[in-house]
Amino acid sequence: MTRFALNRATTKHWPLPDLVRGCAEAGVTGVGLWRDDIAEYGAAPAAELIRDAGLAVTSLCRGGFFTTPGWYDENRRAIDEAAEVGAPALVLVSGGLPPGSRDLNAARAQVAGALADLAPHAAAAGVRLAIEPLHPMFCSDRCVVASLKQALDLAEPHPAAAVGIVVDTYHLWWDDTVWDQIARAGREQRIACFQVADWLTPLPAGVLLGRGLPGTGCVDLRRFREAVDAAGYSGPVEVEVFADDVWSRPGPEVLAEALAGYRDHVA
Amino acid sequence: MTRFALNRATTKHWPLPDLVRGCAEAGVTGVGLWRDDIAEYGAAPAAELIRDAGLAVTSLCRGGFFTTPGWYDENRRAIDEAAEVGAPALVLVSGGLPPGSRDLNAARAQVAGALADLAPHAAAAGVRLAIEPLHPMFCSDRCVVASLKQALDLAEPHPAAAVGIVVDTYHLWWDDTVWDQIARAGREQRIACFQVADWLTPLPAGVLLGRGLPGTGCVDLRRFREAVDAAGYSGPVEVEVFADDVWSRPGPEVLAEALAGYRDHVA
Repeated sequence: MTRFALNRATTKHWPLPDLVRGCAEAGVTGVGLWRDDIAEYGAAPAAELIRDAGLAVTSLCRGGFFTTPGWYDENRRAIDEAAEVGAPALVLVSGGLPPGSRDLNAARAQVAGALADLAPHAAAAGVRLAIEPLHPMFCSDRCVVASLKQALDLAEPHPAAAVGIVVDTYHLWWDDTVWDQIARAGREQRIACFQVADWLTPLPAGVLLGRGLPGTGCVDLRRFREAVDAAGYSGPVEVEVFADDVWSRPGPEVLAEALAGYRDHVA
Repeated sequence: MTRFALNRATTKHWPLPDLVRGCAEAGVTGVGLWRDDIAEYGAAPAAELIRDAGLAVTSLCRGGFFTTPGWYDENRRAIDEAAEVGAPALVLVSGGLPPGSRDLNAARAQVAGALADLAPHAAAAGVRLAIEPLHPMFCSDRCVVASLKQALDLAEPHPAAAVGIVVDTYHLWWDDTVWDQIARAGREQRIACFQVADWLTPLPAGVLLGRGLPGTGCVDLRRFREAVDAAGYSGPVEVEVFADDVWSRPGPEVLAEALAGYRDHVA
């Protein structure tokens, strides 16, 4: 069970101190944080809380949104926060098309430019930027990086220690080219983060909050875990689920189900 | 304006005789039909109605759903209906994963097998099977064919006259490999149908009925039209929009807007 990590978004309403205690009691050794946590608790206290319980911070979500005004300063701050809290990777969601634009190429070029601007600061801070391709249904409003191949192509100009990618089963499961790209990501040492959620149908309005705990949907999660392993990844497996019905339930119950789902469908 | 065709689903509640008259009055020369129309009016009467108004049937939607029991007979019937109504192409939506399955490879292999079973009958009937890749958000429940490349790979074993593909802007706009694949589709003479709808955010629950009339969303529709033209396609441009707010409005008003959107954003 040691590779299981709980992404904090899965139990959104579980206060961080309780979550940390719950994870420690359940034998979970890693937690993926969000910048909301840092805003609420402060980076140093959050880091101390987690470290004192014997847990590691596996990632910080998130930077990105490079088409939003102020993106540069905001991402510099996010990198600094990741360093302060001891997160090895800062997950980046690129942002969608600027308002009124239909130019995907331009938006993607802007992401490439932003990475070039940020990578040196990230490298200096000891934080790896982790480009997350989101499902193509988010292409217009959240993330113009819509495939693992695009994410790897964007990472390519940069040192692997400074820029990696996220493999998230929810976003990539439909793509028959993903297996080759995971192997490529391994060869290029780019796998910075591996996140797991299941796909449920029908999707809710807005499509953001329709994910399932591992095993509740139709994704062959184990195939993904085996693929990242075969690519040389041996890091944490973060369960990250956004879903109203999961959020409405007690944290300990959700953690127990996430652990059981991980054991039965991922490990 | 001669390439504009109205897919009947765009004005779902406009009775077919009124739609035919409205199209003829607006100078529209092509209509994409659905099997519902044939069920309601009969193939021969529907064909006569359309022909007498000087219109062509540009396509019939739809066959497919190859993981549903009875798919073979149902698709044979759909092919026959397409022939009876004079539709050159039968649009195929493959169907999603079978209930309880997580095996996308198996589902895609089943599609390949179904095409092999149906292509001879289609060829004999003078109807072209047109494989439609749907947006990956439909991969689990409607269509395991999630990219134009997959559709072209599935078409490849068959004569181009028997099996082609559909280029639908709504489903493919996010994919940066689509331009190469459209060029390939042209080289391989596979473009059986070109459908246009725009992408709107946020998506509604279920995500099926969130499309926009041309020009109301973020898709570079003209780039698609130019790409299919450059690939040698000179057939109809079907505007096909599924959306509750479009369906709730009078057919003539929607047709006028579709025509204006086509003129300003596609032609």
